[in-house]
Amino acid sequence: MKNGLFETGRLEAFSDGVFAIIITIMVIEFHLPDGTHFSDLLPLVPKFLAYLLSFLYIAIYWNNHHHLLKAANGVNGGIMWANMGLLFCATLIPFGTAWVGENYQAVAPTAFYGIILMLNAVAYYILQNRILATMSKKSPFAKSIGADYKGKLSPILYFIGIVLAFISPLVAELVLVGVAIMWIVPDRRVERALYG
Amino acid sequence: MKNGLFETGRLEAFSDGVFAIIITIMVIEFHLPDGTHFSDLLPLVPKFLAYLLSFLYIAIYWNNHHHLLKAANGVNGGIMWANMGLLFCATLIPFGTAWVGENYQAVAPTAFYGIILMLNAVAYYILQNRILATMSKKSPFAKSIGADYKGKLSPILYFIGIVLAFISPLVAELVLVGVAIMWIVPDRRVERALYG
Amino acid sequence: MKNGLFETGRLEAFSDGVFAIIITIMVIEFHLPDGTHFSDLLPLVPKFLAYLLSFLYIAIYWNNHHHLLKAANGVNGGIMWANMGLLFCATLIPFGTAWVGENYQAVAPTAFYGIILMLNAVAYYILQNRILATMSKKSPFAKSIGADYKGKLSPILYFIGIVLAFISPLVAELVLVGVAIMWIVPDRRVERALYG
Amino acid sequence: MKNGLFETGRLEAFSDGVFAIIITIMVIEFHLPDGTHFSDLLPLVPKFLAYLLSFLYIAIYWNNHHHLLKAANGVNGGIMWANMGLLFCATLIPFGTAWVGENYQAVAPTAFYGIILMLNAVAYYILQNRILATMSKKSPFAKSIGADYKGKLSPILYFIGIVLAFISPLVAELVLVGVAIMWIVPDRRVERALYG
Repeated sequence: MKNGLFETGRLEAFSDGVFAIIITIMVIEFHLPDGTHFSDLLPLVPKFLAYLLSFLYIAIYWNNHHHLLKAANGVNGGIMWANMGLLFCATLIPFGTAWVGENYQAVAPTAFYGIILMLNAVAYYILQNRILATMSKKSPFAKSIGADYKGKLSPILYFIGIVLAFISPLVAELVLVGVAIMWIVPDRRVERALYG
Repeated sequence: MKNGLFETGRLEAFSDGVFAIIITIMVIEFHLPDGTHFSDLLPLVPKFLAYLLSFLYIAIYWNNHHHLLKAANGVNGGIMWANMGLLFCATLIPFGTAWVGENYQAVAPTAFYGIILMLNAVAYYILQNRILATMSKKSPFAKSIGADYKGKLSPILYFIGIVLAFISPLVAELVLVGVAIMWIVPDRRVERALYG
Repeated sequence: MKNGLFETGRLEAFSDGVFAIIITIMVIEFHLPDGTHFSDLLPLVPKFLAYLLSFLYIAIYWNNHHHLLKAANGVNGGIMWANMGLLFCATLIPFGTAWVGENYQAVAPTAFYGIILMLNAVAYYILQNRILATMSKKSPFAKSIGADYKGKLSPILYFIGIVLAFISPLVAELVLVGVAIMWIVPDRRVERALYG
Repeated sequence: MKNGLFETGRLEAFSDGVFAIIITIMVIEFHLPDGTHFSDLLPLVPKFLAYLLSFLYIAIYWNNHHHLLKAANGVNGGIMWANMGLLFCATLIPFGTAWVGENYQAVAPTAFYGIILMLNAVAYYILQNRILATMSKKSPFAKSIGADYKGKLSPILYFIGIVLAFISPLVAELVLVGVAIMWIVPDRRVERALYG
């Protein structure tokens, strides 16, 4: 340990476990269809799409988390608790997914799903700041974060999505899909700053 | 990191977690029998056999995944997302297993199970290609994949299984069992190329 | 291995897995609300608060466990079983959480939740002693534990909480929240003794 | 890799994941009591005891598995599949536990639980043999296994337990408890052979 920080290994392993379980546990919500025809699968389509979207979000968070902790010099108490905050928000995703998956045309489930995603973004932002606080502001990672337009844009887009849910849940859901797509498109600049 | 690739460790750990949870979560579907006699277990036999088959498939994927990532030079964004694609397809297996396990004589559940297995094969193929793209075509692993008759045969067999499901679900299921057995028989050549 | 001890790695990985699953499995208990309005979420608030508290407790145990095994010289059979004892008590938390979350104004669920937390504290204390038994009493870690006022205070506070549950469940729950807050405030002294 | 064997790391991580999930998933079976009094917990006592016994068995297997793979020179295809066989048998334990926990006075659930434990013992024995096949018969580990009275006694005791279930389920359950206790008492000789 140097500078009051200890290594990231076990925090990463624990977080990996929680992300892996969240991503898999959502499937338990798929109750078997009543019949045995392909058409009996149709009512499950919205639930499936909600699961797909949440899977993408967890995958994005896992990936960003991976990069973030790789860049970190180490872990202190503040980083540990900020990480727990992110994991807590992430564990709310299956519940939000199940609710919106069953009621994708309803206002509250859609807005609530947007709120959960926003909470995750805020928790991630806090974790990122806790890690940046242990770094020099001139480090390549700190600079790449400074130019992090996605991180700054996402909460605004989530907010727009939440507000839109009260007008048209479907349009709101498209916005939330859009944010996921924005994140999946690779952020070459960060990777370059990190790995050269 | 070299050549824009980072190490495989955390991707493997995350994938292990997801595979381990999928393999275990299928057991939750075994609801307790209504009575307390051995004969009360009889209705569970098809579900048990479906679970056994899916367990074998996850074990095969875990094993192949293990070898594939061991051979990889490292991970980039494309590999990461191809891996997430495979994990997503794998998380659909418990649902497909439960449906066919309860309705093994019905067309749609059997065909649907075959479709899920085929999706997994396609996702694995994409992941393999993403990894091969980071390698020299003359590497021993690239050559061993070139001779990968199982990888080429499986999608054809899955397709045959899916079509057969519309004629005889039981025969289709035997084909899907056959593919699993084909994979369990060890592929000495790949192991030799990798470790030999 | 030295002095009859083997390395802590796999014990940590196994414990991480169990803690990660416990923390995530509690969310399965959140059954979907009956309606699709924000007001339909209201009945879930006590369950949510119980989940939040239990999440904090698991996070605290994970964190303390992390520090404890980091300080350990290694693992022997006694430590292995003491660790299993802690994991067993921890797996009871989801059940206790679900019961008190649905009946936060009832005596028995509140007292029972306090009893489970107390069992965890006792199991942790035994694990700590098993690890201390492999160390010199003059080691920095042994000294820091000697001054471990939180570890000594917690069982007393749990006991007070359990007794109070028979008078006022709500007051008892506040005591249990208080113990969690006491643990979240960082214990600089231990970190200093460990990492200098 | 030497002698056609590759390292044990990822096999251990995967097995740890499966054991950790099995041990935790059994708690989901504890459905909340109908009332809010301590007496409402009474009907759960047999389920709790069945859970405790199964927890001990998984802990014993995890511990023995840990020692076994520590002693192994490496993993080959046969060892990989023997390990999958053990994990498969272990995933049946939650189902057997739930059935006997709800019907501890019935013949079939008790005998069935004994059969599952026996299957695990057989699977472990096969895994042990696959690993021994890669070792010199003069290695300290091979010798310690040769004197492994517990491994030889357990299947006989399970068999006695299964037969006794048809006469008195309670006596049979005591036998199965006895086998667990026999394993928990530390086997100093193996530890000595392994770690000196």
